Amino acid sequence: MAKERMKGQIMYKLIKKDGKAKRGELVTVHGTIQTPVFMNVGTVAAIKGAVSTVDLEEIGTQVQLSNTYHLHVRPGDELIKKFGGLHKFMVWDKPILTDSGGFQVFSLASMRKIKEEGVYFKSHIDGHNIFMGPEESMRIQSNLGSTIAMAFDECVPNPSTREYTMASVQRTTRWLERCKKEMARLNSLDDTINKHQLLFGINQGSTYEDIRIEHAKVISDMDLDGYAIGGLAVGESHEEMYRILDATVPYLPDNKPTYLMGVGTPANILEAVDRGVDFFDCVYPSRNGRHGHAYTNKGKLNLMNARFELDDRPIEEGCNCPACRTYSRAYIRHLLKAKEMLGLRLIVLHNLYFYNTMMKEIRDAIDNGNYQDYKKEKLLKTGGNYNE
Amino acid sequence: MAKERMKGQIMYKLIKKDGKAKRGELVTVHGTIQTPVFMNVGTVAAIKGAVSTVDLEEIGTQVQLSNTYHLHVRPGDELIKKFGGLHKFMVWDKPILTDSGGFQVFSLASMRKIKEEGVYFKSHIDGHNIFMGPEESMRIQSNLGSTIAMAFDECVPNPSTREYTMASVQRTTRWLERCKKEMARLNSLDDTINKHQLLFGINQGSTYEDIRIEHAKVISDMDLDGYAIGGLAVGESHEEMYRILDATVPYLPDNKPTYLMGVGTPANILEAVDRGVDFFDCVYPSRNGRHGHAYTNKGKLNLMNARFELDDRPIEEGCNCPACRTYSRAYIRHLLKAKEMLGLRLIVLHNLYFYNTMMKEIRDAIDNGNYQDYKKEKLLKTGGNYNE
Repeated sequence: MAKERMKGQIMYKLIKKDGKAKRGELVTVHGTIQTPVFMNVGTVAAIKGAVSTVDLEEIGTQVQLSNTYHLHVRPGDELIKKFGGLHKFMVWDKPILTDSGGFQVFSLASMRKIKEEGVYFKSHIDGHNIFMGPEESMRIQSNLGSTIAMAFDECVPNPSTREYTMASVQRTTRWLERCKKEMARLNSLDDTINKHQLLFGINQGSTYEDIRIEHAKVISDMDLDGYAIGGLAVGESHEEMYRILDATVPYLPDNKPTYLMGVGTPANILEAVDRGVDFFDCVYPSRNGRHGHAYTNKGKLNLMNARFELDDRPIEEGCNCPACRTYSRAYIRHLLKAKEMLGLRLIVLHNLYFYNTMMKEIRDAIDNGNYQDYKKEKLLKTGGNYNE
Repeated sequence: MAKERMKGQIMYKLIKKDGKAKRGELVTVHGTIQTPVFMNVGTVAAIKGAVSTVDLEEIGTQVQLSNTYHLHVRPGDELIKKFGGLHKFMVWDKPILTDSGGFQVFSLASMRKIKEEGVYFKSHIDGHNIFMGPEESMRIQSNLGSTIAMAFDECVPNPSTREYTMASVQRTTRWLERCKKEMARLNSLDDTINKHQLLFGINQGSTYEDIRIEHAKVISDMDLDGYAIGGLAVGESHEEMYRILDATVPYLPDNKPTYLMGVGTPANILEAVDRGVDFFDCVYPSRNGRHGHAYTNKGKLNLMNARFELDDRPIEEGCNCPACRTYSRAYIRHLLKAKEMLGLRLIVLHNLYFYNTMMKEIRDAIDNGNYQDYKKEKLLKTGGNYNE
């Protein structure tokens, strides 16, 4: 059924543009994603902070993102395939995006050697030797059966020389060709869990605009299901990030999803949407939640602060998240001080809800053709408190 | 309203007896408790394992138990009183029982000195000097505004000499008189949060039957709202515990709640109900959950075990708890191995639901006059796997 439905269909539909801001929808075998969208990060098939997929339903999550490298190492993608795939394993029937594992290989693993065939490295869990190249990454993501697979690339470190960046980006392009071929092969196999797995390519080029643009043109010609911009939010300034987006996004196809990987603060998202990006993911809402920081429309609150000890208001007045519907700042502050897991859980739920709700506001603003007003007002309301 | 309703009313009603097993109900200002009941332990006004009071509603919790000593130390009972009491603070409108703080003073605090007036000790958090006697304990519990306050006693260590036990129990009796007087005074004050706070006395006497019996007689004459048996499950064998219950419970009033403090395994509860106990509390279901151990009607499961890695069944088939309704043993095992808080949360929810459901089965069995059959069958089903 799903197979028939998907064949030859245009999967991404650009519904409306407001300036450069894109309002789209992506039809997948696991349901339709309304964009701009924020994907909620569940690294090892679980959102940190004791948040379950039942909770994700409640807080308006459209797409869950899991990390290929982590799942490969534990519990193992073969095990998840035997179980029936990641959707069945974590009980989530909506879209899942898996990253390629590349970013973790470059950031977590030790003793890594990059060769033309792929990367040799040691597991961050037990130190055993692992090899991962484009084919391995596709095979692991196919075993997981995610909705969207990401191409295996090298996330060029910042700063990098022009020469290193150029050579790396060219290898990433060769890897992308191998990813595309391997994904097509895997999608045609009988025992593949999701035969309609989509593949997004990734633009790299560090902070060199010309390399970014050239790479964007090359990968756009490969007619993939979507395009990501990688290698940002890795130490460069926000202004530099916006400059790269200004330069690069126009060279990625409008009629495909545009995904800015690992970004970012609410302000980053508002600015990137304004530059044509419509997929996002970031660990900030859950990581900040675990540190006691809550996002609100009046800036970020540090709930460990003594001024909240008798504050009977919710984290944000009028918020309809599972934390704000019931609990006070005073109670959550007490839980944090007492190191009770419940405190973290409540703030993480609130923060993810805040992000998911902001994305809905963004979609509504684009639908109504007043994105500029919305963006200006939201940035103003939330103040300068948004640098993480 | 509540004030009028409570005045002069018989608050505990013994609905039925089946052998010695009591089926009762306790009417309180925070609602009616059906007994036998298992109180879910929320030490610092939160159930460990990221379980909220919204979750407690869902898993059938009737009474939440919080620890007076912990709340006195952090966030402070004065703060909770200012906030409007523990019910408002943790958002729970059903009954709350607070312990006296005595047990924690004797088990957690250091440098303690027991005098006639009370106990001098140092905080386990920051080492500052604290004094707690009967009046202080009542005042703290009154500040918390719990439904049921426990008398301040000394939990006699096991083993203790006959002489020490006798002297300690006599002091506990003198302390109980002071508790009763102070509680009456506090309940009459204008700014008291719960003017109908109930007071349960505590029977002590270590493993000396005659001391236990004599003490039971003395405190029964004091016409308190309920009676607890303390100082059990502190190292003595299960058989010794049952022997003490056999000897002591008959000397406590049938027409009052009978509470066995800190007990215990499902088997312990089944045996104690059979000896006339109808209130219980224990950290086992949450503590075991945090160690990956799940209670089922086929014994306890260690979900860390490799045999569950592809097991797509819920923890217990047919169970309607939030974990079993959605998630598999394989997924929960993975979460435990990956040290994801969600794994602990799911098992703790299951274990508390298991206990709460068993209490409902026990009430039904007594209602139907077949408690013996039920007990025999439940012990058989669950095997010998229940020694914790």
